[in-house]
Amino acid sequence: MIAEKMKNMVANSSAIRAMFEEGNRLAQIYGAQNVYDFSLGNPNVAAPEAVKQAIRELIDEEDPVVLHGYTNSNSGYADVRETVADSLNERFGTRFEGKNIVMTVGAAGGLNVILKSLINPGDEVIAFAPYFGEYRSYTNNYDGILVEISPDTENFQPKLDEFRQKITPKTKAVIINTPNNPTGVVYSEETIRELAAIMENKQKEYGTDIFLISDEPYRELVYDGAQAPYLTKYYDNTIVGYSYSKSLSLPGERIGYLVIPDEVTDSEEVLAAANVATRILGFVNAPTLQQKVVAKCIHEKTDISYYNRNREALYQGLRECGFECIRPEGAFYLFVKSPVSDEKEFCAAAKKHHILIVPGSSFACPGYVRLAYCVSYETIVNSLPKFRELAKEYFE
Amino acid sequence: MIAEKMKNMVANSSAIRAMFEEGNRLAQIYGAQNVYDFSLGNPNVAAPEAVKQAIRELIDEEDPVVLHGYTNSNSGYADVRETVADSLNERFGTRFEGKNIVMTVGAAGGLNVILKSLINPGDEVIAFAPYFGEYRSYTNNYDGILVEISPDTENFQPKLDEFRQKITPKTKAVIINTPNNPTGVVYSEETIRELAAIMENKQKEYGTDIFLISDEPYRELVYDGAQAPYLTKYYDNTIVGYSYSKSLSLPGERIGYLVIPDEVTDSEEVLAAANVATRILGFVNAPTLQQKVVAKCIHEKTDISYYNRNREALYQGLRECGFECIRPEGAFYLFVKSPVSDEKEFCAAAKKHHILIVPGSSFACPGYVRLAYCVSYETIVNSLPKFRELAKEYFE
Repeated sequence: MIAEKMKNMVANSSAIRAMFEEGNRLAQIYGAQNVYDFSLGNPNVAAPEAVKQAIRELIDEEDPVVLHGYTNSNSGYADVRETVADSLNERFGTRFEGKNIVMTVGAAGGLNVILKSLINPGDEVIAFAPYFGEYRSYTNNYDGILVEISPDTENFQPKLDEFRQKITPKTKAVIINTPNNPTGVVYSEETIRELAAIMENKQKEYGTDIFLISDEPYRELVYDGAQAPYLTKYYDNTIVGYSYSKSLSLPGERIGYLVIPDEVTDSEEVLAAANVATRILGFVNAPTLQQKVVAKCIHEKTDISYYNRNREALYQGLRECGFECIRPEGAFYLFVKSPVSDEKEFCAAAKKHHILIVPGSSFACPGYVRLAYCVSYETIVNSLPKFRELAKEYFE
Repeated sequence: MIAEKMKNMVANSSAIRAMFEEGNRLAQIYGAQNVYDFSLGNPNVAAPEAVKQAIRELIDEEDPVVLHGYTNSNSGYADVRETVADSLNERFGTRFEGKNIVMTVGAAGGLNVILKSLINPGDEVIAFAPYFGEYRSYTNNYDGILVEISPDTENFQPKLDEFRQKITPKTKAVIINTPNNPTGVVYSEETIRELAAIMENKQKEYGTDIFLISDEPYRELVYDGAQAPYLTKYYDNTIVGYSYSKSLSLPGERIGYLVIPDEVTDSEEVLAAANVATRILGFVNAPTLQQKVVAKCIHEKTDISYYNRNREALYQGLRECGFECIRPEGAFYLFVKSPVSDEKEFCAAAKKHHILIVPGSSFACPGYVRLAYCVSYETIVNSLPKFRELAKEYFE
């Protein structure tokens, strides 16, 4: 009865989500403290206290007709968009204005808005494996074709030679995600410069525009002094998708933004399209109370030290068990090599120990598994003996 | 640079929205009190005090990790879905369970989710003119074809004979909207029974399933004791899209739900598709705080007497000026006959008096204009002398 396009989607419904729902099921049977659920990027860190304070002030002080009403523009409150632009300019030396910002229903909403705005059927969208599997669904929503660059399992930086070869006259967009889900890798400035140079050259060679879409929900989550370069400074046709899901621990509230700089080709037209796409895709506008909340909390950040402690404990603990894993510099994921080639088998074995992890094939990188360490520290500490038991099945 | 499909959309960007933005521009020049903006269905009635109280309690009492986190299912919090189902059962004698409810980003989000779930390219979706123009965009998002039933300008009930003739083997869905935007008409129970019978017969004749999608943001806004029948009781393949935008004055917060009853063909598959569509369209889940707010405010309603007073004043006032208009029984719109055949000319003339109204061609019904009377009572009272001046241009 359902649409053809949905049949596969439903059949192969997100393995991440399935695992997350399985975690809840196991927690009901065995008790939450006996289930080690590393499946979903759902932060265990509470939103900063300032969020609660902002909500309280807004409902006490603002006119509810405005606070809960449609925004004048589908792209969001003018003052909120200006606050976001000013903050980016201050942090990154950019020159955005309010008009360059489109408030969105999280980064997922933002990516859909920009792909709807840009993609014609048959256009190609490049992503570097391993990548967030939803990029494929989002591209498919607009009949685009996702073109995959194979993973470099040495260091999980993008394979730029393969990238150069796979850009065609049909390439309309390239999505990058740094700090990266699922690896935690931060792309170096050198990588960004090279990637931008390749795209510039291909634009000239083909006489086309190729948009770099930077999906940045993890921008603020970096460790060991790592720096994630701000991409609009390296390549003119860059569009940024941001989310407050992780930086303010508000994933359920669906709040983020797109940046469409003046340097983007036909930027006014692209901005107008994003505005209309926001409306016709049914978002209408980003949730209004949360727009005002993030503006009030523009200088707030989540507690990075919490994630950092988790990262150290889990990374060290897994290495001591014998697992192989690249040391993450950002986000809140570990990407661990499966001790057997079929990583789904490994995930199933882990589940017997009540450990829930996601197969790398969900990220176009089989042979690996993803662990989201945005859990409580206790979960990590208590999971380590279980990981040791699991390791014994492979390494002894 | 933008997608072909978006070019027309951007060029003909919503006349309603354009008018709304124009209203804000005029208000800045002439002062808000000198602009009579009847363009947008953005309620001027504040959300009930209980909404503020609910938000306060939620931020004080709930664990922020849960309150602002991803919901376990993309379809929403289990307890919220159950609360909604229970409330519908109590009010309408239905037998829904929590699993039949999918919390959505307003009705616009819900309609997109269900159309994405059901529509194959080339499938036909029927709407009765005059209808909310976005139905065309939403259908187009999934490469469906909107098939229009011409308006019955006598009483603005659906033309059922034409409907019967226009159902084909490609008809996948029929959207109805009662109480209606833009006419304020409530479809009678007799109309609903006939409509259901026609659809039943056509399903049998063609051996197909034809879904009745009931878009109900105005369900609670009825006057003079009018009743809007609950459609799932009349036709098995009914799916309801609801929004709290008007009933709780929360349009900016983007909160509503879909009801997909067990009686719908392959209902489990349709529910699974709606769950996946919620995810891949980038909604991910309806905003979490607002999910909990509407559950806490499940027995609350907006102040109908406020709209009723506006309705009486504007309807009487316009009639006294000589304008023709059907008396609305629901929603907060008046659909007024343009005194000249090109109603856009009439809208332009009205604008010279700082009166902002929307041409009926935005609702596939040229020759009429829509006035949204969800404004302050003062706006209505103060606009009447302006309407009298406007009327003089035509009736003297």
